[in-house]
Amino acid sequence: MAISSSFFACSLQGSVAAPKTLNWYKELSCNPSNLFFKQSGCIKSMYQSHSRLLPHSILSKWEQTDRFDRIQCHSLEVETAPSFSIGKKFQLDDIIEAQQFNRDILSAIFEVANDMEKIENNYPGSQILKGYLMATLFYEPSTRTRLSFESAMKRLGGEVLTTENAREFSSAAKGETLEDTIRTVEGYSDIIVMRHFESGAAKRAAAIAGIPIINAGDGPGQHPTQALLDVYTIEREVGKLDGIKVALVGDLANGRTVRSLAYLLAKYQDVRIYFVSPDVVEMKDDIKAYLTSQGVEWEESSDLMEVASECDVVYQTRIQKERFGERLDLYEEARGKYIVDQAVLDVMQKHAVVMHPLPRLDEITVEVDRDPRAAYFRQAKNGLYIRMALLKLLLLGW
Amino acid sequence: MAISSSFFACSLQGSVAAPKTLNWYKELSCNPSNLFFKQSGCIKSMYQSHSRLLPHSILSKWEQTDRFDRIQCHSLEVETAPSFSIGKKFQLDDIIEAQQFNRDILSAIFEVANDMEKIENNYPGSQILKGYLMATLFYEPSTRTRLSFESAMKRLGGEVLTTENAREFSSAAKGETLEDTIRTVEGYSDIIVMRHFESGAAKRAAAIAGIPIINAGDGPGQHPTQALLDVYTIEREVGKLDGIKVALVGDLANGRTVRSLAYLLAKYQDVRIYFVSPDVVEMKDDIKAYLTSQGVEWEESSDLMEVASECDVVYQTRIQKERFGERLDLYEEARGKYIVDQAVLDVMQKHAVVMHPLPRLDEITVEVDRDPRAAYFRQAKNGLYIRMALLKLLLLGW
Amino acid sequence: MAISSSFFACSLQGSVAAPKTLNWYKELSCNPSNLFFKQSGCIKSMYQSHSRLLPHSILSKWEQTDRFDRIQCHSLEVETAPSFSIGKKFQLDDIIEAQQFNRDILSAIFEVANDMEKIENNYPGSQILKGYLMATLFYEPSTRTRLSFESAMKRLGGEVLTTENAREFSSAAKGETLEDTIRTVEGYSDIIVMRHFESGAAKRAAAIAGIPIINAGDGPGQHPTQALLDVYTIEREVGKLDGIKVALVGDLANGRTVRSLAYLLAKYQDVRIYFVSPDVVEMKDDIKAYLTSQGVEWEESSDLMEVASECDVVYQTRIQKERFGERLDLYEEARGKYIVDQAVLDVMQKHAVVMHPLPRLDEITVEVDRDPRAAYFRQAKNGLYIRMALLKLLLLGW
Repeated sequence: MAISSSFFACSLQGSVAAPKTLNWYKELSCNPSNLFFKQSGCIKSMYQSHSRLLPHSILSKWEQTDRFDRIQCHSLEVETAPSFSIGKKFQLDDIIEAQQFNRDILSAIFEVANDMEKIENNYPGSQILKGYLMATLFYEPSTRTRLSFESAMKRLGGEVLTTENAREFSSAAKGETLEDTIRTVEGYSDIIVMRHFESGAAKRAAAIAGIPIINAGDGPGQHPTQALLDVYTIEREVGKLDGIKVALVGDLANGRTVRSLAYLLAKYQDVRIYFVSPDVVEMKDDIKAYLTSQGVEWEESSDLMEVASECDVVYQTRIQKERFGERLDLYEEARGKYIVDQAVLDVMQKHAVVMHPLPRLDEITVEVDRDPRAAYFRQAKNGLYIRMALLKLLLLGW
Repeated sequence: MAISSSFFACSLQGSVAAPKTLNWYKELSCNPSNLFFKQSGCIKSMYQSHSRLLPHSILSKWEQTDRFDRIQCHSLEVETAPSFSIGKKFQLDDIIEAQQFNRDILSAIFEVANDMEKIENNYPGSQILKGYLMATLFYEPSTRTRLSFESAMKRLGGEVLTTENAREFSSAAKGETLEDTIRTVEGYSDIIVMRHFESGAAKRAAAIAGIPIINAGDGPGQHPTQALLDVYTIEREVGKLDGIKVALVGDLANGRTVRSLAYLLAKYQDVRIYFVSPDVVEMKDDIKAYLTSQGVEWEESSDLMEVASECDVVYQTRIQKERFGERLDLYEEARGKYIVDQAVLDVMQKHAVVMHPLPRLDEITVEVDRDPRAAYFRQAKNGLYIRMALLKLLLLGW
Repeated sequence: MAISSSFFACSLQGSVAAPKTLNWYKELSCNPSNLFFKQSGCIKSMYQSHSRLLPHSILSKWEQTDRFDRIQCHSLEVETAPSFSIGKKFQLDDIIEAQQFNRDILSAIFEVANDMEKIENNYPGSQILKGYLMATLFYEPSTRTRLSFESAMKRLGGEVLTTENAREFSSAAKGETLEDTIRTVEGYSDIIVMRHFESGAAKRAAAIAGIPIINAGDGPGQHPTQALLDVYTIEREVGKLDGIKVALVGDLANGRTVRSLAYLLAKYQDVRIYFVSPDVVEMKDDIKAYLTSQGVEWEESSDLMEVASECDVVYQTRIQKERFGERLDLYEEARGKYIVDQAVLDVMQKHAVVMHPLPRLDEITVEVDRDPRAAYFRQAKNGLYIRMALLKLLLLGW
């Protein structure tokens, strides 16, 4: 990896971005534990749970360099490795929200994702996560996202514990707190991929867990791996991120996908964003204000054809019926307003692509599928590579 | 395999029965792709998805023989390998319906199933499918069938992605088409085993998928792996298929199992079939006409004892309550009419067997279980071997 | 293992505690089978199913010693190995109920569990169960228990077939008997972990199955692995079992956990048990009578503070709302009566611990979690080690 040397440089100055488990180990080394040491009650069990995760090679390297203690005791003071200290709390210990990422870390993740694509394309794949166990703790079902994560883990040789309907089936139904569930499940696994119906649930889980948490969507909140795969897809399909023109089409008010995407695109230079949506579901002011503050040019338009002819990416979304409640008339009106069909394709540039987070209903007509600029199934596939990359990074480090 | 030489002979003249993935590869080789080639929009993603599946040894063999291009460009014109060109479309690219099979291909599959039995009996089994990932996409739950497929995959070293309730949990609930779901899931797996509530769903999936599809039952339609395991069980238990006498008992109107079995038995010589069923659920005319057209002798009888004394196989089925709607009186009457019990066993020949697709209620009494001629649990186990064989054939070829 | 020599001594005199599969094999060896031998109809399929499970090393050892036939024909007459002949029927062929265990066998299991802890703590774990397949057949969902078993199997290199909602999804919904389901599923797996809503279901399953059955809870009946992990946790946390003082707090009438725990504690010397519960859910007389008959001192108390100050273990349980039916007033009263909080901790001894089978609601306050004497998450983790040990013992033997 070309980028690895700069990471190594960072590590010489401050801290490498070691996975959560390793950080725990380091913390514990500074605070030798005995059976009844007085501190967070879960530390001990974490130590027991996770010492198995420490790659021996990494460990011995730490010890050889004799920098082990000094580094670990300053693990929260890193300033020299800015690309990994966004919010400091995370450093790829967990994947919780789009705000964790800047363009350096995005670039680094995408490079690993690209490696993962090569691994996945070559039989028999990889065994780098052999011996690791991922728990998918889904409080609301999402077969697509769950299968994508589980495929990612298995393509890397890891194993999976699955629960698709934790809300109804698990102890949650008996009134157990999320925190208690996490403390139990972390004893059975090495990483937890979690989907929840409440915004902020993933952050709460990460705060208590001694193993990495990946947010696979928390209600109206965040779905960071979707945001990552969207940006990755744009880079792969268009070949660049600086200077691109992206149309966000459809339900911009409720779609966490387009909100996160707009947020991440603001990290690139000379990006121009077009919002094309029915009035009832237009992009909210917070994102518009944020884009303006970041110097991103944006405009609202009601002319999909004109926008489509100018953009590199037409990012279509589904109008979500469940957001309209009783007002099915508004839903029907909104739903039919902006359709990506052959006519839209006809005005799009040769190199431009159509994206969609899926599932789609009829907001992209089936005829579009045949056009090579229909990128949405490739986009779904990129989700696999991004998730493989994140699993690798959280469990093994850079 | 004794049969392999004839297959090889076929391959010299036309096309070997290579797995779907390989066929795709070949097609692509003739139509060198670039990013924007104008054809089926999913070809590209298939290529990306599945190049990993190509066994390198097979590939290099193709290349060495220098017949690569020529063969692939004629892949739909094969006439010299009749046993693999039933419907031409399939050639064991997918397992969709009983009509795919003739006695040569059945015999070949059974030989592989027999090898699988040896593998399963020897610890620690096989790793021939290591690195392969099967998705079980079940739109209606069927624990028995799902576990059988998943066991088959794991006994061969493969891995599994499971979804048992795709209808309720997946994007289907949001209105996504089956085709879109398949295009997404094929990006996460190497083969899809699918059960659906609509007849024809598996065929639609196979038409769009770039990876093999196995139909694990599509509503009132087909359940081809059940048909295969039934015929395999008869051969294993009775020792032959030509010249056998089979009684089909119970619900012959609604049971796709007995319909498929009758269809496949027609491929053998001197078969005699007895239909023993309550009037309300007697065998439909289309199967009767087909049997007659194939020269199969059949008769309807209301005397189970007499039929049982003459047959090699008494194939009992469950009367399905759900088919009777409000008419529970008819259900109760039909249900109690033909029971396989000790009295039936007493008139059966020593070598004859009782079969049942399971689950059973009381149409076979529990006392029958103790008799060695009760073959139904062995029949269920044979389902494992047949499914192991099919997974091997679809993923690795003959 | 220090204890292994005594086991070996047992084997010289009678029978080693070989896993179920091996016993079957031995039985079959005495009754050479042919296709139509007249005996239990399922023997044949068991033989087919399970010969793969026989460790070749064990087998050849049997054969070398030339004691093979003699031993197997007396497999039900063993008297010289009392620690493994509790109820004779089981001998760790299955894990069905707490009554299977005496202190020798508990001690032996705990020693294996301790080994498992070391395995789990060391990456990449173990592969001793590679090639083995466990089916989790859950007729009522219990995510916590299921994940614990599945993690245990995977940490040892084994594979898992999962079904979480067998009652609704499987053939049971069509009226199939448990026995039929077991006979089918045993054809697909090497061991079945089963949870059922009916007391005695696991015993029925074990009676029919040719592979080991582990009871993961059968309705109001038994949950033996929970009982084992509770005793194991006490030994690990307190350092001894003889002479301990244990307070059982909360719902003692309905909790199978505390009933089984009291039963097993009676096997140790000088144990003293305190029952602290609201009147409506006090410990039933059968357990009290049993304890008295075993010379265990016990008393009922309504003063949690006093009891807590004297005990080594405060075992808190959840008051189960569902047991109160319409009487929510009684539930609310019972629920608030005995809470473990900081005040209780303050009177507890330094070495004492708080345990809970989880999930908890507010019967232990969250502030307690921070105290190192809060052992309940370590207890949950011990469930993993106990289950790893049982899987190892049932599949590979001692």
